Amino acid sequence: MEFAYDARTEELRERLLAFMDEHVYPAEAVFAEQVEAGINPWGAPPVVEELKAEARRQGLWNLFLPGEHGAGLTNLQYAPLAEITGRSPSIAPAALNCAAPDTGNMEVLAEFGSEEQRKQWLEPLLAGEIRSAFAMTEPEVASSDASNIATRIERDGDEYVVNGRKWYISGAMNPACKIFIVMGKTDPGADKHRQQSMILVPRDTPGVDVRRGMKVFGYDDGDHGGHAEVVFTDVRVPVANLLQEEGSGFAIAQARLGPGRIHHCMRLIGMAERAVELMCRRAVERTAFGKPLAQQGVVQNWIAEARVTIEQLRLLVLKTAWLMDTVGNKGAHTEIQSIKIATPRAVVGIIDDAIQLHGAGGVSQDTPLGGLYAAARSLRLADGPDEVHKRSLARRELKKYL
Amino acid sequence: MEFAYDARTEELRERLLAFMDEHVYPAEAVFAEQVEAGINPWGAPPVVEELKAEARRQGLWNLFLPGEHGAGLTNLQYAPLAEITGRSPSIAPAALNCAAPDTGNMEVLAEFGSEEQRKQWLEPLLAGEIRSAFAMTEPEVASSDASNIATRIERDGDEYVVNGRKWYISGAMNPACKIFIVMGKTDPGADKHRQQSMILVPRDTPGVDVRRGMKVFGYDDGDHGGHAEVVFTDVRVPVANLLQEEGSGFAIAQARLGPGRIHHCMRLIGMAERAVELMCRRAVERTAFGKPLAQQGVVQNWIAEARVTIEQLRLLVLKTAWLMDTVGNKGAHTEIQSIKIATPRAVVGIIDDAIQLHGAGGVSQDTPLGGLYAAARSLRLADGPDEVHKRSLARRELKKYL
Amino acid sequence: MEFAYDARTEELRERLLAFMDEHVYPAEAVFAEQVEAGINPWGAPPVVEELKAEARRQGLWNLFLPGEHGAGLTNLQYAPLAEITGRSPSIAPAALNCAAPDTGNMEVLAEFGSEEQRKQWLEPLLAGEIRSAFAMTEPEVASSDASNIATRIERDGDEYVVNGRKWYISGAMNPACKIFIVMGKTDPGADKHRQQSMILVPRDTPGVDVRRGMKVFGYDDGDHGGHAEVVFTDVRVPVANLLQEEGSGFAIAQARLGPGRIHHCMRLIGMAERAVELMCRRAVERTAFGKPLAQQGVVQNWIAEARVTIEQLRLLVLKTAWLMDTVGNKGAHTEIQSIKIATPRAVVGIIDDAIQLHGAGGVSQDTPLGGLYAAARSLRLADGPDEVHKRSLARRELKKYL
Amino acid sequence: MEFAYDARTEELRERLLAFMDEHVYPAEAVFAEQVEAGINPWGAPPVVEELKAEARRQGLWNLFLPGEHGAGLTNLQYAPLAEITGRSPSIAPAALNCAAPDTGNMEVLAEFGSEEQRKQWLEPLLAGEIRSAFAMTEPEVASSDASNIATRIERDGDEYVVNGRKWYISGAMNPACKIFIVMGKTDPGADKHRQQSMILVPRDTPGVDVRRGMKVFGYDDGDHGGHAEVVFTDVRVPVANLLQEEGSGFAIAQARLGPGRIHHCMRLIGMAERAVELMCRRAVERTAFGKPLAQQGVVQNWIAEARVTIEQLRLLVLKTAWLMDTVGNKGAHTEIQSIKIATPRAVVGIIDDAIQLHGAGGVSQDTPLGGLYAAARSLRLADGPDEVHKRSLARRELKKYL
Repeated sequence: MEFAYDARTEELRERLLAFMDEHVYPAEAVFAEQVEAGINPWGAPPVVEELKAEARRQGLWNLFLPGEHGAGLTNLQYAPLAEITGRSPSIAPAALNCAAPDTGNMEVLAEFGSEEQRKQWLEPLLAGEIRSAFAMTEPEVASSDASNIATRIERDGDEYVVNGRKWYISGAMNPACKIFIVMGKTDPGADKHRQQSMILVPRDTPGVDVRRGMKVFGYDDGDHGGHAEVVFTDVRVPVANLLQEEGSGFAIAQARLGPGRIHHCMRLIGMAERAVELMCRRAVERTAFGKPLAQQGVVQNWIAEARVTIEQLRLLVLKTAWLMDTVGNKGAHTEIQSIKIATPRAVVGIIDDAIQLHGAGGVSQDTPLGGLYAAARSLRLADGPDEVHKRSLARRELKKYL
Repeated sequence: MEFAYDARTEELRERLLAFMDEHVYPAEAVFAEQVEAGINPWGAPPVVEELKAEARRQGLWNLFLPGEHGAGLTNLQYAPLAEITGRSPSIAPAALNCAAPDTGNMEVLAEFGSEEQRKQWLEPLLAGEIRSAFAMTEPEVASSDASNIATRIERDGDEYVVNGRKWYISGAMNPACKIFIVMGKTDPGADKHRQQSMILVPRDTPGVDVRRGMKVFGYDDGDHGGHAEVVFTDVRVPVANLLQEEGSGFAIAQARLGPGRIHHCMRLIGMAERAVELMCRRAVERTAFGKPLAQQGVVQNWIAEARVTIEQLRLLVLKTAWLMDTVGNKGAHTEIQSIKIATPRAVVGIIDDAIQLHGAGGVSQDTPLGGLYAAARSLRLADGPDEVHKRSLARRELKKYL
Repeated sequence: MEFAYDARTEELRERLLAFMDEHVYPAEAVFAEQVEAGINPWGAPPVVEELKAEARRQGLWNLFLPGEHGAGLTNLQYAPLAEITGRSPSIAPAALNCAAPDTGNMEVLAEFGSEEQRKQWLEPLLAGEIRSAFAMTEPEVASSDASNIATRIERDGDEYVVNGRKWYISGAMNPACKIFIVMGKTDPGADKHRQQSMILVPRDTPGVDVRRGMKVFGYDDGDHGGHAEVVFTDVRVPVANLLQEEGSGFAIAQARLGPGRIHHCMRLIGMAERAVELMCRRAVERTAFGKPLAQQGVVQNWIAEARVTIEQLRLLVLKTAWLMDTVGNKGAHTEIQSIKIATPRAVVGIIDDAIQLHGAGGVSQDTPLGGLYAAARSLRLADGPDEVHKRSLARRELKKYL
Repeated sequence: MEFAYDARTEELRERLLAFMDEHVYPAEAVFAEQVEAGINPWGAPPVVEELKAEARRQGLWNLFLPGEHGAGLTNLQYAPLAEITGRSPSIAPAALNCAAPDTGNMEVLAEFGSEEQRKQWLEPLLAGEIRSAFAMTEPEVASSDASNIATRIERDGDEYVVNGRKWYISGAMNPACKIFIVMGKTDPGADKHRQQSMILVPRDTPGVDVRRGMKVFGYDDGDHGGHAEVVFTDVRVPVANLLQEEGSGFAIAQARLGPGRIHHCMRLIGMAERAVELMCRRAVERTAFGKPLAQQGVVQNWIAEARVTIEQLRLLVLKTAWLMDTVGNKGAHTEIQSIKIATPRAVVGIIDDAIQLHGAGGVSQDTPLGGLYAAARSLRLADGPDEVHKRSLARRELKKYL
């Protein structure tokens, strides 16, 4: 047992921290202005392209992707880097070409895509030239159970015909988003986990109706492509667009989830660290009742609780990454669920305390806290609510005693 | 001791509940569409005017105002009505001319305004023809302590000159908002509670710069006039615009706060009831893992907790109203603080559970929950954060033992 | 609606408060010494008899009992008096002949007992000459559902034969306890709520084996008769010992529960007030890090939270009492469940904070806090755990939407 | 970074787990009977001596002690073993000669004792022939700040004279306890952290008055020597009994605390695992409302929360152990505080849920849960309450921003 990062991780952390200091944090104000000015509605403002160029130049690019196509890091090596990007979550992940949902989509293409699919979509994604979306969640069914999915993918000669309604498809409002990975049922009569397939649907295919941007507490998250409601009506794509074979959709989704949760959770920890930093800065600067907030017991309590919580969360996420690297996603099932349960909720609490410390400014557009809150809160819902994961985890624990 | 509402309250509750069913709830969709269409940016959409006319016709008008100028109800009689309006908080309070901050401003004018001031501003406010704002909170100082206020009101001949910066001035973005009650210091050298004064500043006075709408999470709350940052630069108004005499600002603010908190808290309880209703409806309609959510233990737990919490909050707020009616604001000090501490926080929790039950839809624009959340959450900050009130309340409790 | 106590309540409160100051609090040290000395193991120490005599002399006697047999107070009138006794819960209720489980048993006898049963058992109980126990809970079945009860009461000629095992039968270790009201099944084949009966079993009947004192944490609660495990083996009593007729046990149990919960909850509130008082006294006396604990933010937070919580709980319990008086137990069902859910849990939290403030002394025999904690904590389990009541309450709430 | 235990740890864990299964768990009932029978009041019942012999025979002995005198394990290697002993905390630590406070005392003697002191006291302690106590906490001062200590140690010729009052001196009621390490002030005028010294006081020295056993929620913890109040009146011991030189007491205390907290926290985690096991067993065995508790959502929620919490706590404690091994106590300061804050509180919560699941049995003498609760709860107070550690930790965090 050993709790120090390895040399490669340390080296990358150092370079990434420098990149944050030199490029990302200074860009935050510019980013906000460009968003406010509405320069690229539903897409990243221009400053992000500059940051992408610089990150690529520095080799801080595609760090998330294991194997030959990416930087070749393990989950355990990438996790601390993902955390750092979470400190400026609207900018840093995009700047490093490590932003969801592209990361998961690139993983899927790298692992399950045909050579042709990879050439057509993975390459421009890896190059940061296009964006992508992952169309799974549906308004009408509980997204916590993939077997509920109602969207149909039906073969008709050399084509598949897609019909269904999806929502909260992140990134899909972005004109730069060129490709959707759509989950649907090819065979509703098959075994529960062999009914689903995934298929590549270019965003401009006839019948694809990107209807509206869904909101998260009033935010449209336009700067990273929003969260679209998308209706698919008799959308036809060639059979070659299917990922793997019919019925493999559920397995691909499972494979996609593990790393996705590690990434989300590590970024959440970075968000929590940012909130603690803001909390501390405010506490030393602001005076009330004759002394700095930093000397108020209640404020100290918030800060201590945040620190103690973050340390625990980080270790659990890192251990989960290590497990995935050593025994695979399946062996890390309990831990993956655990971080999904524990992290968003705890980070929501930390950000909420930071908001409280900032007074009205905490919910305003003048601090990042309101946006961080919305982002963290929605992760208690994405990929199934906490409660579903707790139920499943408990049932596994109880099985030992049956 | 007697826990039944009196006859007048019961009669008004019945009429108001009917008005909600017949007019307010059906108007919610129209309201949303008109807001979405941007018909009256920063102001109420047209449907609200129709509702106002109807409410006035039915005598459901200015119910909040005790005494000759209003409906003449006690705090205890009005509270259950305010609760009902809270079930549709963007519409019902405005429809009944019982929306903050006008209510507090009308109270101030009725109680402390000169005959001329009342004629010029109270009458059109009571008639629902104009709106108003209350400019107290400042970004640079802790608003929890009115004695911190930095805005200056300086006499210069027959005029007062106002300089300062305010923010989160609710309603001030609304073009229909014609008058600001501004709190500032006339004599920074006086006793701590005699430094402040309140003065009437018409919104169109030169030097008044309504700079931008502050947000609450991602919401601009445009439909009820937003929350403005307002800068006052050498704003000149006649001396007759002062409320009462110099130095009376703090006392007026205190007088304004008590009823304001009762109203806020009762509306919050109405919001909580709405959340419970939405939670129950969703629970009986939505199925997961083979049975309705209503049969899941965790969901039942949320609903039971909500019910038990609401019952307690309501009683405490009603008792506070009764105390204000019988022994006055000062005698109800502990209770007023108690409801300010207990209500927003608890209601935030109930709405949060309701969000969780709704999945992604809970934070979307398709349910009112995200907006309710933001509104309730910001009331943990308005008029001073919870922590300040807890500190003050505890010190009073501890004094008994010194 | 009116939140002031009526004149009779006020007058009794005053007299009771004086009695507490003059007799009860001064007796606490004596009580502790007598218990420590083991003068009357499993029974109240002698000082309690002196207090009983004084209370009876002052007319502060049997206040809990409505109707002709007792003081004739309503639930709403008695509740604030029960609260006061809860401030010294080992002594005051017993001193006033208002201690559980005798109170519930006397109510049952007064309401459901035959003239003979009343003469034989109610009269000496009302006179404070004997004690009693209520034998319902069984170790093998979930006591939250009376229909689970396994104890059998079978008719055999002119006798009933009782067989079963009970535990946590409060007061039953006390030699002064002369009579048990035993719940069991006379007809397991009847309708679910007509299977049970209650029967009077004198403690010295052959076959009654008072086996051992059950503990609550490390306390045996010997000073009020402990909590016995009792085994009934072929215990024979005359048929005249049955309360009402066969099958009426469930209904009697229901009738007994309402007032019992009011009493428990009000005493809990008194316990919470005592904890707050101890907390405040310690906070002003004890210094750490150069200032009194009373000036530490975290301590102020505990005190404020306690005050705000207690105010809400008290109002809910009082309203419940009022409902029981005006619409009966059935109409107050939701509220009775609500106070059962809300009160013990919240009071446990307040006492826990008080313990924390006292350091090691908080869990020691030198403050009453550890004992208060154990008493309050066990009330989250008695009469069914919180969770069962929440489930039931939620289902009733959800029914409105089915 | 690597999350697997090393080979030596794995091997010892296996042997220890087997020892638990074969010897410790089967001894629990015997232990309870012997305690109940009062065979060795204030000391371990005889079965513990048998277990000690067996553990020593198997080489599972003094595992806690690094260096030549003990098993030579690192903190990181010992921690998982301490966890296992925590599953049966009244028996296993004592059986392995790894019970507090002897462990800390042996560490102090091994590290700071003179050769003579080690010979006289360390050797019999290592051999499990005697027990010891650590006399630091005082009733009159906040034990959270060692500089408050009031006990005096004054030189008088060749002797030191000790005067003071201590309480909650664990193990000191045990006749087998032969030696006290007493903390007191030799020079109240010195620098804050050079005022204290530690001195060895044999329990039978004239003037040592072991006055009474302090309780923890009604428990006297007699089976491991209780928690004594001890008064020292003109107690004279040779100057050679001083540990190190005058003024070194604070430093020795600091050195003692780090490992002590690791041990406590790991045992707490073992206690939590035991509670989860009991919870699961009960959940699968007990039926309510027609299905096993294991299928109730609320129960599943408790179990999932417990699992997620335990995983995080364990990692944090292990990392802290690793830090102490690699950078020393001082470098692990924040982490040592973090585990002290996080672990007892969280474990208290888990045990409390387990109690709730067990109904009345949960607080009874028939399950270990009540005792586990009391033990865990008191660790929120020992070595300073949580709040003191949170304050200190927060101040260190805030310093970065000053």
